[in-house]
Amino acid sequence: MNPSDEEKQRLSRRRFLASGLMAAAGAGLSAAPAAAAGTTDNAPPAANPSPANVVEPFWDKYQAGIITPVQKHTNMAAFDLTTSDRADVIQMLQAWTAAAARMAQGQTAEPLGLDASGPAADSGEALELSPARLTVTFGFGAGLFIKDGYDRYGLAAQRPAALVDLPKFTGDQLAETRTGGDLLVQACADDPQVAFHAIRQLSRLAYDTAQIRWVQTGFTADSKPGQTPRNLMGFKDGTNNPSVKDSQAMNQFIWVDQEGPEWMRNGSYVVVRRIRIALEHWDRMNLAFQEQTVGRHKYSGVPLGGTKEFDKPDYDATDKDGNSIIPENAHIRLGSAETNGGAQILRRPYSYNDGANFTAERWPPWRQEMEYDAGLLFLCYQRDPRTGFIKIFDKMSKFDMMNQFVTHTGGGLFACPGGVPTGGYIGQHLFEKA
Amino acid sequence: MNPSDEEKQRLSRRRFLASGLMAAAGAGLSAAPAAAAGTTDNAPPAANPSPANVVEPFWDKYQAGIITPVQKHTNMAAFDLTTSDRADVIQMLQAWTAAAARMAQGQTAEPLGLDASGPAADSGEALELSPARLTVTFGFGAGLFIKDGYDRYGLAAQRPAALVDLPKFTGDQLAETRTGGDLLVQACADDPQVAFHAIRQLSRLAYDTAQIRWVQTGFTADSKPGQTPRNLMGFKDGTNNPSVKDSQAMNQFIWVDQEGPEWMRNGSYVVVRRIRIALEHWDRMNLAFQEQTVGRHKYSGVPLGGTKEFDKPDYDATDKDGNSIIPENAHIRLGSAETNGGAQILRRPYSYNDGANFTAERWPPWRQEMEYDAGLLFLCYQRDPRTGFIKIFDKMSKFDMMNQFVTHTGGGLFACPGGVPTGGYIGQHLFEKA
Repeated sequence: MNPSDEEKQRLSRRRFLASGLMAAAGAGLSAAPAAAAGTTDNAPPAANPSPANVVEPFWDKYQAGIITPVQKHTNMAAFDLTTSDRADVIQMLQAWTAAAARMAQGQTAEPLGLDASGPAADSGEALELSPARLTVTFGFGAGLFIKDGYDRYGLAAQRPAALVDLPKFTGDQLAETRTGGDLLVQACADDPQVAFHAIRQLSRLAYDTAQIRWVQTGFTADSKPGQTPRNLMGFKDGTNNPSVKDSQAMNQFIWVDQEGPEWMRNGSYVVVRRIRIALEHWDRMNLAFQEQTVGRHKYSGVPLGGTKEFDKPDYDATDKDGNSIIPENAHIRLGSAETNGGAQILRRPYSYNDGANFTAERWPPWRQEMEYDAGLLFLCYQRDPRTGFIKIFDKMSKFDMMNQFVTHTGGGLFACPGGVPTGGYIGQHLFEKA
Repeated sequence: MNPSDEEKQRLSRRRFLASGLMAAAGAGLSAAPAAAAGTTDNAPPAANPSPANVVEPFWDKYQAGIITPVQKHTNMAAFDLTTSDRADVIQMLQAWTAAAARMAQGQTAEPLGLDASGPAADSGEALELSPARLTVTFGFGAGLFIKDGYDRYGLAAQRPAALVDLPKFTGDQLAETRTGGDLLVQACADDPQVAFHAIRQLSRLAYDTAQIRWVQTGFTADSKPGQTPRNLMGFKDGTNNPSVKDSQAMNQFIWVDQEGPEWMRNGSYVVVRRIRIALEHWDRMNLAFQEQTVGRHKYSGVPLGGTKEFDKPDYDATDKDGNSIIPENAHIRLGSAETNGGAQILRRPYSYNDGANFTAERWPPWRQEMEYDAGLLFLCYQRDPRTGFIKIFDKMSKFDMMNQFVTHTGGGLFACPGGVPTGGYIGQHLFEKA
């Protein structure tokens, strides 16, 4: 018996036990299930009407959720594959693709039947809700190609050179339980329940093929159109992003072209970093210090020495004593294209707020108390992380004045294939070429 | 030296050290702060325009956030008082009240000055955002009146009889770090950043007087007007709530009247329960079983045996074999006024989603994996918890079929005083009578 058959037998056994459990639960009812099943009261509601402005197209050249205008909420999950069978992976990706396309339209993950005797095809909490511009963006981690030295699915030769193992950066405090994963699914929507619903359905469809490794929610402020949103540090965040409408910049910096592998054409690489911010400390710093740290004025977003938010920061300007107006270690200087040989990434950041936990300070005023576990869920897309995030962040991790307030606690690097043509499935080219 | 003076000296010392720390940080700048301070670029933006439909009035007979239509997001924090000085508590409640009233209008917590040499009066992340119907609702826990046997603030005699210590209910798994607290602040808003911003400012204003004990976020789906929102179990939740427009019901069940103490007049008691739901298991139960558990049809919200969502559930109806159509232990039956001697509470529930953590099952199919730490952030208001939540939940905690899927992991009971007249402060009657 080869490992794959053994695995399948084990899975069948599990499935049998699970259905037995459900039957047992049903038998314990104090009234017959038949009383409830099959009535018209039970009929699923009709699919949502989906006005175009709340539906983001799923079938496309590029995956949705990359240059899509940022939605208000995200719910992301990294999965580890537990199957040893390549066919299981393909089957799951097919189911994921079909479900993601349906949910983007405001439909249930799978069609709901009237049969009340089995688990429903959808958990139902998004019924009647708007599609809320849901996008589901898929990424492949290194573990899909090789894990603990094993080429589980015969894909090792297709691992892109750009899908490197991220180096350990200065200050990294990445927790294993928040880092990496064989697959990444990012659901973004203007309704948090719609985003969570999407992750939950895909997770259910992954049953016995993949398991959740970590999950993370994020949000953005409900900013007015044309305003750059503020992050939790109170500063405008994203002013200096390349415009997603600039197709030349997108082609140069974001989309993979002919450099290969072929299955990554029109795809992009996403770096995720969960960045905890010591908000309590930040809030006690004086305004001038905060502005020097960032390199911008807080309220207006204007770069130091400039007059308007979208002014190009003048990194050469000095005061009468010869000091740089924008400090040498200011956040925007170290992250700029100018000081990184022209490197650019497309940031698509969310804030996160995971409550609070206990922190004992080792410096004045030696407070011992609960502190927010909140900060930035940093996401950036790029054509090649080696010339994108890694290049830019290597310097920032060492010198950015902001580092005294931020700690990177998790994340990963994932290869996001190109978009899916109607009826295909995510990563199809990868599996059919390899 | 009495304890109060000693405490004050300690606080002054801390404040001195804190300001020293900030000066040191400032001295380390690579450019002079003067370069940034005092320029017009630095000016705070004008206060938000506040159309009436996004502002919930703060100064009122009742506290906002109780019968206010449910907002999309909540951020709540329980605080423990660390001061031994009654004057500190009053000062903090005055500052909290003023800040809450300003923020409800979309203003900063305190006026922003142009002085960049000290910490700003507001962390700034809600600048330019809509007030988003922000409400800030304050509650007093038992610890304000007596803690570890000590009457710290001379308020013990003012503790309401209704502010009992909640009994330990069957199945309770309350974690100390998620339970109780001397004070509760609940911020609700249609924008998660606005809600968090409010808590964060109040927390800062509490510096050296109170510390965060626990925090919790929640959300609701963006349901269409007139639709009952679905919770994470996929069922409509709140159909059976008393109407907040029914002033007779509100007076009877929600608002404290002459029963005293006088400072609680027009107030209410809130019970908070953080209820984790085993969503993965729930999703694998068949639809009929789910509906029997709840006592309603899932998709329509119609009570079993009924024809429309708002039909009064018929708890006497039986099938041809004499079994109840709505099972004896169905959730809606056990929670109904009919089976609780007419008791009613005003539920104001949110869902929560705190990620996932590791769970090892001890039953088939013996899965060991990450499971969602998500569920219901149950809040209910009532005139007296002894005849409200405690009465109702005592039976539910023992018999509700839903219990096999839910676990109560935290929460508390808090006395929410009446609303604040213009210029007053929350709890003023308590402190000025006692």
